[in-house]
Amino acid sequence: MDKMKRFQEFKDKTTINVNGEITPAEDAKISVFDRGFLYGDSIYEVTYSDHGQLIFFNEHLDRLYNSANLLNMTIFLEREEIIKEALKTLKQSKLERAYVRIIITRGETEINLDPSTSFKNNLIIIVKPQPPYPQDNYTKGLKLMISSVLRNDRKSINPNAKSGNYLNNVMAISEAKKLGFDDAIMVNHQDKITEGTTFNIWMVKDGIIKTPPETSGLLKGITRQKVIKICREQNFNLEVSDFSSQMLLEADEVFMTSSTKGIMPIYQVNDKIFNNEKIITNKLSALYDELIQEQIRNKEFSYL
Amino acid sequence: MDKMKRFQEFKDKTTINVNGEITPAEDAKISVFDRGFLYGDSIYEVTYSDHGQLIFFNEHLDRLYNSANLLNMTIFLEREEIIKEALKTLKQSKLERAYVRIIITRGETEINLDPSTSFKNNLIIIVKPQPPYPQDNYTKGLKLMISSVLRNDRKSINPNAKSGNYLNNVMAISEAKKLGFDDAIMVNHQDKITEGTTFNIWMVKDGIIKTPPETSGLLKGITRQKVIKICREQNFNLEVSDFSSQMLLEADEVFMTSSTKGIMPIYQVNDKIFNNEKIITNKLSALYDELIQEQIRNKEFSYL
Repeated sequence: MDKMKRFQEFKDKTTINVNGEITPAEDAKISVFDRGFLYGDSIYEVTYSDHGQLIFFNEHLDRLYNSANLLNMTIFLEREEIIKEALKTLKQSKLERAYVRIIITRGETEINLDPSTSFKNNLIIIVKPQPPYPQDNYTKGLKLMISSVLRNDRKSINPNAKSGNYLNNVMAISEAKKLGFDDAIMVNHQDKITEGTTFNIWMVKDGIIKTPPETSGLLKGITRQKVIKICREQNFNLEVSDFSSQMLLEADEVFMTSSTKGIMPIYQVNDKIFNNEKIITNKLSALYDELIQEQIRNKEFSYL
Repeated sequence: MDKMKRFQEFKDKTTINVNGEITPAEDAKISVFDRGFLYGDSIYEVTYSDHGQLIFFNEHLDRLYNSANLLNMTIFLEREEIIKEALKTLKQSKLERAYVRIIITRGETEINLDPSTSFKNNLIIIVKPQPPYPQDNYTKGLKLMISSVLRNDRKSINPNAKSGNYLNNVMAISEAKKLGFDDAIMVNHQDKITEGTTFNIWMVKDGIIKTPPETSGLLKGITRQKVIKICREQNFNLEVSDFSSQMLLEADEVFMTSSTKGIMPIYQVNDKIFNNEKIITNKLSALYDELIQEQIRNKEFSYL
């Protein structure tokens, strides 16, 4: 049972906070009446720390509250309490470079779809090591496929609410992995690119940088917002507009953005290989890295 | 804290089975690494018992395995084990009329979307009292609205897999309740009726009975299948075909089917009131009730 052993090793390296209590992994549990468990009725954020500093944590907290708003979920917790518990968990982990997942559910209620029965939240924070990704991921890049699974439509369940309803993405990555790809990109009903399973998508063609708009059906990534800002401030030619799978496949450069990965090039989409020089991807990476270094220095959300 | 008190009273009446162990409600918990909690990566069934007999339990188990197939979820448990645990929990509850919820998750894994990391399931069974619905619900019927939330599309997440990704339905019922309705009906992208949040939808117009096909995007309800069979055997005029919101509003009779509700008339949809005689609804209800009585007598899945 290799998978079981790997899971045990993984668990041993985690630090978990359940409603304010640092709890050993074996005991880190949630009621079966928790709406996160019953319905995926939860929201979450993933950020990481570098040198003990939670990177862009204000932006992640803003987005957490925005997810709650989109789902009409009351957050009974104060923002300061979430910050305190996140830093407490990070400190307990003793990790300087950590993955930090903050989950807030609509709490435990009688079995009843109607969320107005909710009267509290459950707050779970999971911290685990986040070693840098292999250098090859940044020099060469990842191999993705465009999934046959369409991204959830905004009129059904808004991808801009980062919620515990993640089967759509689970099905997409599962298909991709089975076919030998690293991960999946998802399109909407109009065959326009939306996002990857856990990252935003960018393309460069003839010097123009493109990334899909919120209306395509995506989560407004924190890194995406930062890169948009960099493009505007540094006078890159940026278009936040829809593009099709076909246009993506005809790009000069393709890359992804995510909080834990930063800017990572994409080497292949379906059977199309992108082996041009990554001129713009590399320029943006260097500028984004400066932002990260600035974050590390600012120590606003550091336990050290 | 009325809601908290109500939840406590609810919990006191439940009987819970966690991976084979009957567990007091306070201790009935699941790991925070359970994929059902993290991603809604779980499947479930709800049935009920009458006179201690689990109604249409074979059909529910078939559907549970079908949900697993649709999500490529391995069920490591034997069917016989699930039956044994369900009956054990029901017996422990001492309830003759009970609501029985069976949840199977893809188990605990390291935090990783890819479901191939799964190596076991978690099996949770929740039994609670299921008193008959108020008689008024059957003589008059319920008040529903057509939700502005579209049903999940089959190409994104197939509603025919009964899964723990239920935010789509949570958002729809929430909207309906706020506006004073009992529950919600959902349409697809083509404005064709799919289903209610936890029930299938039927209409009768000029003696023709209609219910939407699977391709509209719905869960093939067990009661729906039984009523289709009744219609065919008894030579009712049945069409399993798409119809729009507008057609629904022009119906002579409207009703819903669900495992716990059986056949329940719908009195109102949006501002349209259906106050014709419920001739066909009542005929089908009587025939369906005969099937239930037969099930009660058969005692295949009874703890008594």
